[in-house]
Order: sequence, then structure tokens, then C-alpha cells
Amino acid sequence: MINEFNKLPGIGEKLAQRVAFHVLSLSDQEAEALADSIVQAKRSIKYCSVCGNLTENDPCDICRDTSRRQDVICVVESPKDVVAMEKVKEFSGLYHVLHGTISPMQGVGPDDINLKSLIVRLQDSNVQELIIATNPTIEGEATAMYIARLIKPSGIKVTRIANGIPIGGDLEYADEVTLLKALEGRREI
Amino acid sequence: MINEFNKLPGIGEKLAQRVAFHVLSLSDQEAEALADSIVQAKRSIKYCSVCGNLTENDPCDICRDTSRRQDVICVVESPKDVVAMEKVKEFSGLYHVLHGTISPMQGVGPDDINLKSLIVRLQDSNVQELIIATNPTIEGEATAMYIARLIKPSGIKVTRIANGIPIGGDLEYADEVTLLKALEGRREI
Repeated sequence: MINEFNKLPGIGEKLAQRVAFHVLSLSDQEAEALADSIVQAKRSIKYCSVCGNLTENDPCDICRDTSRRQDVICVVESPKDVVAMEKVKEFSGLYHVLHGTISPMQGVGPDDINLKSLIVRLQDSNVQELIIATNPTIEGEATAMYIARLIKPSGIKVTRIANGIPIGGDLEYADEVTLLKALEGRREI
Repeated sequence: MINEFNKLPGIGEKLAQRVAFHVLSLSDQEAEALADSIVQAKRSIKYCSVCGNLTENDPCDICRDTSRRQDVICVVESPKDVVAMEKVKEFSGLYHVLHGTISPMQGVGPDDINLKSLIVRLQDSNVQELIIATNPTIEGEATAMYIARLIKPSGIKVTRIANGIPIGGDLEYADEVTLLKALEGRREI
């Protein structure tokens, strides 16, 4: 059991041991409830066939929500990013979860991420704008550029979220590339 | 001496004590060289009468450098921000150092920062753009807005550096306001 816990992210050997001893101190019922929750979640949570996000229902609640804007799709790397965007509360469009980024160095090509279903989804849709919100890393940028090149001929507007100084941040502590992007991305006020 | 060192930023009691003992172990010459460097720097470094940056020569090297673009001024809060911007190497215009931000809560008004000299400087100049690079804090934003309102009637373009996800950052760990700004500031690619 210690070995199994140790394989989880953020759980080192010490913590795995501590958790394992805690589980041993639980009643049979409690331990079974924990084990069941893992099996149940694994069984009931699947990928949305439309957007690729994790969901219990297919299509997911966001894809089925007709009160959301149907003309804008935000493309993100992972389900965690959907959670982050939803916290902002300002975005009321739809999502598309790639489950990764294109990374030739690691042998991940366009066909290895959830991209084909985006192309299919955009055909016969009335989507006006695709907001690419992959992370501002080398892979995230490369993926954004790849998608932009792929989609733009269809006439759909493709935008990229802004890079710059985080709110509450300090120029003095910003790295040079971020400061350069902040300068390049300056807007009239 | 420990008390004096302790007053400096980032130097706590323990470190002050350690530094003080180190100074006592120096030769007379070395100790005098240290003391002299403080007095000399304090005596020779002054504010540039044009931009307000720290300098040994007045006007400062940046203000006198005719190879720099004379039609764009970047407004920053402190001399440290000039250092940060210069590291970027992409900005070749001039600076204006405010030495603070407008902060009514702390009783700092527009007249308490180096702002009047900016207005004077912009008259009879051929400055086309003012890039406001104050920090994205409440005071920094308020100061940016104040300056924009003050300058815009003169027809000079006033821009603000971008807020967003720092390069190499992760959507998942971005705070909500930064993510909102990244979304609002999205640009077509």
C-alpha cells in the first residue's frame, strides 16, 4: 500500500507511509468506502465526446448548457485548465480539452492529442472565435501556432491569451521574456 | 554598527551581527574603503534633472544618448524598473522615473511624485508615445490612469504594458484576476 501511495504525485515516501498507517487505523467500513470511491470514480468519470473534458454525463454539463455562448471555444491543455478558467467567471463560451501539447521532442504529434475532434467540431458549427489558452511554454506556444495555421483558412478568428506581468506583480522581479511580451503586448489606454 | 546594518532592507539582526563582526576583522584600510564607498556614492549619485533616474552625470547617460529613440518615453515607478527594462534590450526609447505612485490612502498625491517634470518635458517635445510601465498593483494602475487622463488631451498616444500569464507559467496556477486580464487582452494570431 505504501508503494501504491508513493506513486501518486506529491506524495513522497514519508507521506505515503503516514497515509498508509492512517488507513490501517480506519474501520473496515471506512477503508472500503475509500477503496470504493476510487473504483466508482474511475468507472463513472469519462471523457466528454464533444469537448474532451472529464465528465460523468456525455456530453458534459458545459457542452449541454445552452445558456453559454455557442460561438466561442476556448482551447486548453487539460481539465485542470477548465477549472481555472471557470473560476474567472467571465468566460461563458465552450471548451476544448487537448489532453496535452504537440511536442516533437517527446514524440507527441498532432494526432496524439485531442485535436481531430476539434476540427470535426468546427465544421458545420457557427463558432466565430477560437481562443487558444495553452500554457505560455515552448510546447504550448508551438501547439497554439499549429492550431492557428490549421484553423485560420476556415475564416474563424483565432486569438491567443495575453502574456505579461501578473496582477499584483512587480516589474523588478519579472523575467526578461515576460517583460518583453508585456512591452510588445501594450495596449492604448 | 549592528543597529545601523539592521536598518538596511533584507538584513535582520543575525545577519547584521555577522556582517559587523566581519567588518571588525577587516584591516583599517579595508574598513575605511567600505565607509568611503558609502560616502562617495551618496555624494556623487544624484537624480537626473530630465528623467529622474539615478545618475552620476546630469543629464544621465540614457537621456544624453542620441542613438536612442527620442519619440517614446517609458514611465516607471523606480530606478530598479529602469534596470529591469534595460535588461530586455528591446526598448530603445527614453525613461521617466516617478519615484513612487499616487496613493491617496498613504497621502501621496500627484504632486508628491516626479510627475510635473514629465508634463514640462512633453511640452515642445516630439514624443509620440508614452508607455506606462508602473506595476500592476492598485496604486500602479491608479497612477497609470491618472497620467493617461492628464496626457491624452495633448494627442500623445498613451499605452499600458500587458498583463497576463508570465512566460513559462501555467494557467492552473494563475490567479483569477491575471487569467481574466489574459483573456481580455487576447490578441489575434
